[in-house]
Formats: sequence, C-alpha cells, structure tokens
Amino acid sequence: MNQPSKKASVIVIFGATGDLAKRKLFPSLYNLYCKGELEEDFAVVGVARRKLSNEEFRSRVHDAVIDTACMDKDDKHKQFSDHFFYQPFDVTKSESYQDLKALTESLDTEFNIPGNRIFYMAMAPEFFGTIALNLDAEGLIEGDGWNRLVIEKPFGHNFSSAQKLNDEIRQVFSEDEIYRIDHYLGKEMVQNIEAIRFANALFEPLWNNRYISNIQITSSETVGVENRGGYYEKSGALRDMVQNHMLQMVSLLAMEPPASLSTEEIRSEKVKVLRALRAVIPEEVSKYFVRGQYDAGEVNGTHLQGYREEENVDEASNTETFVGAKLMIDNFRWAGVPFYIRTGKRMTSKSTKIVIEFKDMPMNLYKEQSGKLGPNLLVIHIQPEEGMTLHLNAKDTGDMRKTTPIQLNFNNKQENYINSPEAYERLLHDVMRGDATNFTRWDEVALSWKFIDPISIAWANEKEPTFPNYASGLMGPQASDDLLEKDGFHWWPLPENK
Amino acid sequence: MNQPSKKASVIVIFGATGDLAKRKLFPSLYNLYCKGELEEDFAVVGVARRKLSNEEFRSRVHDAVIDTACMDKDDKHKQFSDHFFYQPFDVTKSESYQDLKALTESLDTEFNIPGNRIFYMAMAPEFFGTIALNLDAEGLIEGDGWNRLVIEKPFGHNFSSAQKLNDEIRQVFSEDEIYRIDHYLGKEMVQNIEAIRFANALFEPLWNNRYISNIQITSSETVGVENRGGYYEKSGALRDMVQNHMLQMVSLLAMEPPASLSTEEIRSEKVKVLRALRAVIPEEVSKYFVRGQYDAGEVNGTHLQGYREEENVDEASNTETFVGAKLMIDNFRWAGVPFYIRTGKRMTSKSTKIVIEFKDMPMNLYKEQSGKLGPNLLVIHIQPEEGMTLHLNAKDTGDMRKTTPIQLNFNNKQENYINSPEAYERLLHDVMRGDATNFTRWDEVALSWKFIDPISIAWANEKEPTFPNYASGLMGPQASDDLLEKDGFHWWPLPENK
Repeated sequence: MNQPSKKASVIVIFGATGDLAKRKLFPSLYNLYCKGELEEDFAVVGVARRKLSNEEFRSRVHDAVIDTACMDKDDKHKQFSDHFFYQPFDVTKSESYQDLKALTESLDTEFNIPGNRIFYMAMAPEFFGTIALNLDAEGLIEGDGWNRLVIEKPFGHNFSSAQKLNDEIRQVFSEDEIYRIDHYLGKEMVQNIEAIRFANALFEPLWNNRYISNIQITSSETVGVENRGGYYEKSGALRDMVQNHMLQMVSLLAMEPPASLSTEEIRSEKVKVLRALRAVIPEEVSKYFVRGQYDAGEVNGTHLQGYREEENVDEASNTETFVGAKLMIDNFRWAGVPFYIRTGKRMTSKSTKIVIEFKDMPMNLYKEQSGKLGPNLLVIHIQPEEGMTLHLNAKDTGDMRKTTPIQLNFNNKQENYINSPEAYERLLHDVMRGDATNFTRWDEVALSWKFIDPISIAWANEKEPTFPNYASGLMGPQASDDLLEKDGFHWWPLPENK
Repeated sequence: MNQPSKKASVIVIFGATGDLAKRKLFPSLYNLYCKGELEEDFAVVGVARRKLSNEEFRSRVHDAVIDTACMDKDDKHKQFSDHFFYQPFDVTKSESYQDLKALTESLDTEFNIPGNRIFYMAMAPEFFGTIALNLDAEGLIEGDGWNRLVIEKPFGHNFSSAQKLNDEIRQVFSEDEIYRIDHYLGKEMVQNIEAIRFANALFEPLWNNRYISNIQITSSETVGVENRGGYYEKSGALRDMVQNHMLQMVSLLAMEPPASLSTEEIRSEKVKVLRALRAVIPEEVSKYFVRGQYDAGEVNGTHLQGYREEENVDEASNTETFVGAKLMIDNFRWAGVPFYIRTGKRMTSKSTKIVIEFKDMPMNLYKEQSGKLGPNLLVIHIQPEEGMTLHLNAKDTGDMRKTTPIQLNFNNKQENYINSPEAYERLLHDVMRGDATNFTRWDEVALSWKFIDPISIAWANEKEPTFPNYASGLMGPQASDDLLEKDGFHWWPLPENK
C-alpha cells in the first residue's frame, strides 16, 4: 500500500443526522473530494441517536451533495459514498464508544489510515464534555495517529459555562488539538482582511487613528428566527453573533501586523485586540450598546410576524434580535476610533460588509464648488458578494473645481467564481491539515465572553420597555442610528458590489 | 437687447483654413454651442491667406462638424453657421487689419457683443509676433471689451526664441491676456490628477518619497511622422512632446497642494516643481536621457517604413522620434524618487498612461508562499481610455498565506461617455470664461526650455550612431529599458482599462 497522506483520517461526526452535517459538512467534504484535496485514504463515521443502516446514511449523504457543482458527478458520488459509515450512538453508553472504536480501527485498515481521528461535534453543546471524557475513558484517542476535536458554537453561554466546557475537553485534548469553529473565519473575504492589510503598501500606513475615522461592520439577515425560537430565546443576537463572529472581524481589522503568518503569531495578535477592548461597565451599557427586537412588518408585499409571535417565543420576550454597538480599542493604533457593529434578523438585506471610513483631508480645496467632500471609504464585501470597493472623489466631468464620487471595484466571485470554496470547506480542510489559524483559541473565547457578560447581564436584569422596537425590513431600531449620530457619524448605506 | 453674456466675444481664428481649425476648433465650438455653453452672442471670423466667401467658409465649418454628436443636428448646424465669417488676410498688410477691425466692430453690433475679442493663433508660429504687433498698431485691441490671445505650440524652439516671441506678444498683451495652449492640460484625466491627489484622503499621505518608489509616464503613438516630416525634422520628440506635455504632467503629479484652486496658486505650485527639477548638465545627458529613432517594422502584417525613409526627412537624420528620460525633483517631497517619462512615435500602442509605483511593504509576510509581492500601482489612464486602476494584492482563493494580484477599476468613459468634452472644447470654454488655469504661464515655458536646451544641444552636437535604433511597433530602444534597470525598476506594461 502507498504511504497514507498527511490528512488521512477517520472523521467521526457526532450529530450526523442533523442540519449542519447535511447542509455544510457533507457538501464540503464532497467538494474537497472532487477537487482532489481529499485522497482515498479517509473515512467518515456518522453517529447519532437514530438507527440507520450504512445504506440509509449514504443515501442521505448522496441527497445532500447532489446539487454540489462538481465534475464527473455520477462516478464521484458513488466512490465518495463508499467512504461513509453509520453507527447508532448513545453518548452516555460505554458500548457505543466500544463499537465506535472497533469500527474506526477497522476503517484504519480498510482505508490505509494511520490511526488519525477527527471528532466533529455537530450536535447539542451540552454533550461536548461527556463525549470528550468518554472518548478518553474508552480508549478512542490512544492510537498512534493524531486526534483533533472540532467544536461548533456555541462555546458556552457566558464566561463561566465556557470555562467549564473548556476544562472538560482540556482534560482529554490539548489546546492544539482543539479546533473551535467560527465559520466566519472560513469566509474568503474575512480571510482576505489580512492580505488586504499586510500585502498592500497602500493601506498599512493609513490603517490607524491618524487616517481612519471609524469602522463599521454590518452583518444583517432578512430571515427571522424561523423554527429556532426555542434556541434563540436563550441566546439572542449578542451571544449568537457578537461574542463570536463580530468580535472576530474586529480583531482581524484591528490587530497589529504579526511577526509571521504562523498560527500562534496571528492568534496572539488577535487576542491582543480583545485585551485592549474597552470593557463596558454595567452602568454604561446603554452608552455603548443598543438592542432591538423585530416587530411585524410588510416586506415585498408580504406580512411578516413579529418576534414575539414566533413559535416557542415568549409573548413578552426580552430577547434581542438586533445588536448595535460602539467598541473602543484603547491602544496606540486605535485610540479614539470607534468600531461600530450591528447585526440582526429581519433587516433590509442579507449582507455582511465592512466599511472603513477615512478621515477628511486636512483642507478641502473643493469646498466652494462641492461643499463637503465625501470621505474615502474602503468597503469589504464579505457576503453574499465577495470583493472590495474603494469610494473616492474625482473631478466632475464638467468643472475642474468640482468633485464627484467614484467607485473602484473588485469582485472576487466574478473573477474566481468556480474555485471559491465555501467557509466550511476551507475549515474542514484546515482541520485535516492541522492548521488552527482560523479557529478560535481559548483565550480569545474567554476574553470575548468576559467582554460580553456585563452586557447580557445588564440586559437580562433590565427589560427593554420599547421592545419590539423595529419593524421587520428595517436596519434595526432608531437607537442604532442615534448611537453613531452622537459621534457625528452615520451608518453608510451598503450597495451591492457589482 | 439683452445683456450680453460674460463670454460674448468675437473669436478671430488666424489659420482658419488649417488642420487644427477643422479638426479641433470648429467641432469644439459646435459642441459648446449644442450644449448651451455658447449663447447666441458670439461670432467667429476666420482669416487666412486664401480667398474664400463667407458661404464657402461656412460650408467648410459645416463639413467639419457634421460628424459631431449633437442633438437637433440640422437646425443647430444652420444657426451655428450663421455665426461664422471669413476674411482673406495678409498678416503683413495694414489693410487686412483695418478690414478685420471693421468686420469685428460690425459683428459687435450684429451679435450684441461688448467689444470682447479672442485672437486665436492657429497657424505657423513665425507670424505670432508680427500679428500681435499689428493688432496693436492698427487699433484692434483698443475697444471697451477684453482681449485674449490664444497661442498654439510650439512656443519657441528653445529658450531664446521663446523669450523673443514672448517679448513681442508682451508688448501688446499682458501676461493675464495670454493663453498658451498645451492641449494635454485640457484632457479629462490630466485635469483629474489634482482631484485624485487633493480630494482623497487616501492618496495625499502617501504621495511622497516615503511611500512612492517611482512614477512612470508614457505617451506613445503608433503613427510615424506621416506628412509632417519637414516640421518634425526641426522639432523631434524632445521639443514636440517633452518640453510641454510631459513636463506639464510631471508638474501636476509632483506639485505641492496649493493654498486654493485659483489660477495663480495652481500655476505657482506647478512652476515650483520645474524650479526643483534637477538640471541635466551636458556631460550627464546620457545618464538621464535616451533617444530613439524608429526603423522599419512589421506591424499587424503591414510593412512600415523607417523614419529616414519618410517624406521630407534626411536619409541620415539625427532627429529623435522617441525620448526616454529619468527626471529627478530635488525637493523634500520627491528627493530620491525618479520620474521616468517616455514618448515616441511608431510604438506598440497609442496610449497615455501614468503609473505610480508604491514602495514595498517594510516586511513581506507572504514571502514563503508567494515570493516577492507585486508592488501596489495606481494607474491613471489619460487616453484613449479615461480612468484609474489600482493594482493591489489579495489573498489567493486557495491558500490564505498566498497572494494574488487584483485590480480595482474605474472607467470614466463608461460612466460619463456622453458628457465628457474633448480637450479643445474645455480649453476654448476656459478662454471664453477667462480661466487661464489650464494654460502655461510664461515662467513655466521659460523654465521648461531652460531644462530642455542642454539636452537638445548635446544631441545636436553628437550624432546618435545607433539611429535608427528601434523597429516600428516596439516601445522604443533597448536603452530605454536599461535606463530603469540601472535603478532596479522596469517599465510597467500598460494594459487597457476595461
């Protein structure tokens, strides 16, 4: 037999009958397989409570990848499915682990795998600790190969629960074996933030409080909570989006240039940003944070119900479906530059964009004819479009002392639409290669919860009397606009990147 | 009668049967008329040696503007032509001036013009002085209105002839009545250099020797000298292009921000650049300047003859049809940053572009995977396309530690193709409005000749033994590439701005 590839591994997916596995993991694995990034020396074991045969499981996998763009579809499908196995599982039962151990060991032989294991937790977080401890107790991580644990969000509900979870998994796995997923870190244009900043002489000299007036990050959804009311009531936008995705984007935008692109150098610089984040004390929450909850609304002629009318939602719910915030990073580079973030459901469009607003020129030569010049903006389009737009001023065609706004555009999807992998595809590939750069380190998780906790406590303690405070289809409550207006700024509209 | 407009004037075109009048002046006037920039209170008197009736002249004007894009073509044509008059003219004869005086005065009455005059010299430069002196002697500039003299290039052949010409016209016209045309200053994107620099916070902080490594200006033609061999033998590319157009672009790129956009502030800042231009002493000409002369060549399957085979060209001609140069501006902003210029005939493409090359990052984080990063470039497309391209680096789609070059584009003609006026249209309009900003002041002309003279003298004294030294269709001689290579740079290719 050939030497196995470095990636050769048995991937055990806990929660293999769930939504994440179907929508993200199977298609991502299939894309990697089609592109030749996965060689033949891999096997996937799906485990879940339900009883399924291998054939039934493979048929689910088949259905999940059938619409994936890939060459030689039919042939590949069949070959690909042959790598998939299923085992009914009870996370509390020793036998389940023993059976799993036997299966994975037989797959080592069958697929020429040197004992490498990826344990992917794609299920309810309350069992993460139990599973980790049992994997250890039952001898599943004793083999010759490497072991990696992949953990989906939420990683805890606040600092103390996150710490408890971390302590449990750290009894079994070392920090460098743990891959905490933040799927925003798998997005092409989120990963591009580093290249934009550190591979372009044009931006780095301006990337500080001398030239940037403020940074705005918007991650908006059009959908409501859909059928996840039960989960969302306990989470809210602050825990669901801000503690992880939004703070990760802030870290990437604000970090100092690392000494190298190694995993630890990058994550160490990111964590320094979180350490410099100005803590929000309970009495000042309303100065920095605003919350919203969507009301009913008319969107494209359709009536949409308010959050409190959704299934499994308290009719007097205090849960926020929108967060707007002003973050201050108290270090030499960023002192005085607000990072405004907003995220929510039932907003005007589904879109994630970053706007870097540059300070005005020291002198406006065009004042007489053009009035106030529009500031230069760098817009990074994260999704659904991927690209960059630079908003500049140029001469008005008719008059040389008058300016007109122009846009310089780059659209990544137009240029690379075939090859651009999805976030989960990148992240799975990274796990297989053992590259943890785009996963969150424990100290990042810890610091972000410590930052978030005072806000969620304040909000839990004080019901927001204005809820619901924004109609479906709007960009959040008025308070979100007021937050910027106090500082003399406003949210920039977010046109598409053509 | 209504109050005449401020622009109301009789425009006297000397050389009205010539090429410039037909190709540029008539169409420009017509466009201004169509767009409503010229009201009905204007008249054009064409003068030239030839005997023509008003009707014959109007028919020529009609032919010259027939292909111009303009609404209500037929109606406008007729009305427009009614403003045109012709007078046969001998520049040395008193009667010619007397007749012209009588005609213009009668046109004042007919078109409600308060005595304003534009004298446009669109003819052989040897008569500029004579005409100016005679206009004065015969009382043509004594009226109540304003008088403006428009002078085409060449403004002299070297410093002393330019000074002589200037002295002659200055006996009659004051400096602020003299509009020395450099039609590059009428081009949209040349005028845009100021807005790009002074209306964008993104560029001005980087616009100096700390961040810019070098600037490259290319103005290339594909044609040879065509039927202008006689003129060109006496001029050459240095006088025809470098002394005026190329140095003007250098001045606009290098000038300090003016205190205001007034004519005198802008021209004063431009002239300061010329004062800081490092003079090239005769012994060092070859260190800074290279010359080329086109040979025969095969372009798109067509054989094109060499310069020495052209009509009215000496078969051992020493005239340069290409100039490449390295200019150094010895001031605080630009010390150490070469401005490379090149211009010539029979080159690969017809195109004028400016490339600003930024210095490398202080540290290349991507070295291991990507090797040397491409530098950031700002390309200003002057013609035929009008726009800007920013060449940046982004993350490679497949690998987050690898970069790939990307381009951000703005194309002015796509955005404003209908309204974008031609250079001569802008400049004529400026003359009528009395805005001399985009015309060259005497001190600019004087300094540029003083800079150029040692080079043309050196070249006249020492025949270039390698002539002809570039085949038609190439970007000049090898020496032009060597000029940059010595400094560790190279000419950037000039792709189109899509």
